[in-house]
Amino acid sequence: MRIHVLGSAAGGGVPQWNCGCPNCRTARRSIQRSAVSARLHPSSLIPHPSLRRTQSSVAVSADGKRWVLLNASPDLCTQFASFPSLGPSGGKLRGSPLEAVVLTDGEMDHVTGLLSLREQKNLRLVCTKGVLNLLKHDFPILPALGRYFEIQHSSFPSRIAGLQILAEDVSGKAPPYAKRASRNGDVTGLRIKSVETGKTLVYLPGVSAITNRVRRLVDGCDCLLLDGTFWSNDEMTSLGLTKRTAHDMGHVPISGDGGSLAWLSGLNVKRRIYIHINNTNPVLRKGSRERKAVERAGVEIAHDGMDFRL
Amino acid sequence: MRIHVLGSAAGGGVPQWNCGCPNCRTARRSIQRSAVSARLHPSSLIPHPSLRRTQSSVAVSADGKRWVLLNASPDLCTQFASFPSLGPSGGKLRGSPLEAVVLTDGEMDHVTGLLSLREQKNLRLVCTKGVLNLLKHDFPILPALGRYFEIQHSSFPSRIAGLQILAEDVSGKAPPYAKRASRNGDVTGLRIKSVETGKTLVYLPGVSAITNRVRRLVDGCDCLLLDGTFWSNDEMTSLGLTKRTAHDMGHVPISGDGGSLAWLSGLNVKRRIYIHINNTNPVLRKGSRERKAVERAGVEIAHDGMDFRL
Repeated sequence: MRIHVLGSAAGGGVPQWNCGCPNCRTARRSIQRSAVSARLHPSSLIPHPSLRRTQSSVAVSADGKRWVLLNASPDLCTQFASFPSLGPSGGKLRGSPLEAVVLTDGEMDHVTGLLSLREQKNLRLVCTKGVLNLLKHDFPILPALGRYFEIQHSSFPSRIAGLQILAEDVSGKAPPYAKRASRNGDVTGLRIKSVETGKTLVYLPGVSAITNRVRRLVDGCDCLLLDGTFWSNDEMTSLGLTKRTAHDMGHVPISGDGGSLAWLSGLNVKRRIYIHINNTNPVLRKGSRERKAVERAGVEIAHDGMDFRL
Repeated sequence: MRIHVLGSAAGGGVPQWNCGCPNCRTARRSIQRSAVSARLHPSSLIPHPSLRRTQSSVAVSADGKRWVLLNASPDLCTQFASFPSLGPSGGKLRGSPLEAVVLTDGEMDHVTGLLSLREQKNLRLVCTKGVLNLLKHDFPILPALGRYFEIQHSSFPSRIAGLQILAEDVSGKAPPYAKRASRNGDVTGLRIKSVETGKTLVYLPGVSAITNRVRRLVDGCDCLLLDGTFWSNDEMTSLGLTKRTAHDMGHVPISGDGGSLAWLSGLNVKRRIYIHINNTNPVLRKGSRERKAVERAGVEIAHDGMDFRL
């Protein structure tokens, strides 16, 4: 199974359009610097030598030919442009090796990319009925998209292009746009197995607590891509950016008692990788105390373009 | 007045996710090559040494400090990251010099970027009542966005940050998602004047014919950014990509009798620039016969990052 991280940041990306936190300021400067060193106009490239990150999305393939997209980020066009394997093959004028889009939830930073997939005849969309209804009624982009192409919805479990895909509810929160209270199936984790090799990826970009259900979903997998949104529970409140803690926003913090790092440290999974990292998170900075703590535990920090095989 | 072209392509950009036309193939290869020469991971930058282009959007400022965005493209995050002047200033943790977003129409490639402006308290949105209603009812993103921030709508004429902004209907087509027939005000051209200097920009990214109304809108301006979507009326039909001609899609072609280039050639406007250029358009290729014809007429081809003052 081949895994390609198209985007590794939480909503907004790094730099976020209106954010002046140290990470975003550094990312903006590095974009300008790299442009100069590449002798291109500053605006002519979007590098992320270290900090720059687009919003989280992952491409997975069992055979290296047919691909499944896990969440469709607002940065989809930039992400596809950076990964030629997702382009049309064999000299075709139009075409795509994309077999399906699988959604973990209905957050805008996980579904907006669907709007950039208009130039086709049909799209296979896999998500829970709850998420489908959010995108039909509360943030009704699917009825509008249905005037461009046919949407073939299926729920979990699903078998696509040599991959078996299961979903598990992780007791998260419905998106802020939802008109109703959160329900079972609003936020899921995915367990994706290669039918041929049995290798298994677990994708959990948003998880509010390390429950027994989460532990069971992860048990025995070969790679875990886990919610690394915030380092600490008060990361956003201490900056005065919001009154909502990490927990309030449906994200288990990395550090602290009950944080995800304590669990990951003792977990028998070959590759443990944080993804969906917020621009304020100090683990983005190489050499920071927080980054070192993650690395000491044998845990990796995802970056855009990270590409590996299981 | 300072003008910064954030994106210069029509819907889909260059390369478009599923397009294998010569321009898109070349753009994909150049992205990989530039990454290697900059010693960065291929996916770590998105350059466009010549062909790469994001979807059309322009930033305008009367004073170099406060900015107005003309259309909000799906590539907004990438575009803001590439232009530090749109970042927060003065060491603020959050902030933006963005005073308003002005829409010419309701096409998805002109409005999707609104979804990436969530992390704020309020947004000033300027568009016709027709476009406002499309975004309330037919592609209802505004009701969902209203749960993140307050949207303050106003129609034309509008005066913002030292700019006087007028709109003129250009008899275009309602977006494909519209449930109703096209109406007056669905597609407009903008005339933007610096209150202080009187310098004037006309922005016409989608125009179906060079009517007398269009001529009057453009008359006496200092710079015209004009619909350069297609070179020829049969550009897409001859490739077998659609049965709709340029005219059918609401775009006057560049070439031919009644094409825009014949008009531009004799037009007394200092800077005449094609923008909103489709990935199939041969004018994107430097040295092409079509590009040379445009250049001979003294007309420019916009590129991402193009930045100038009037």
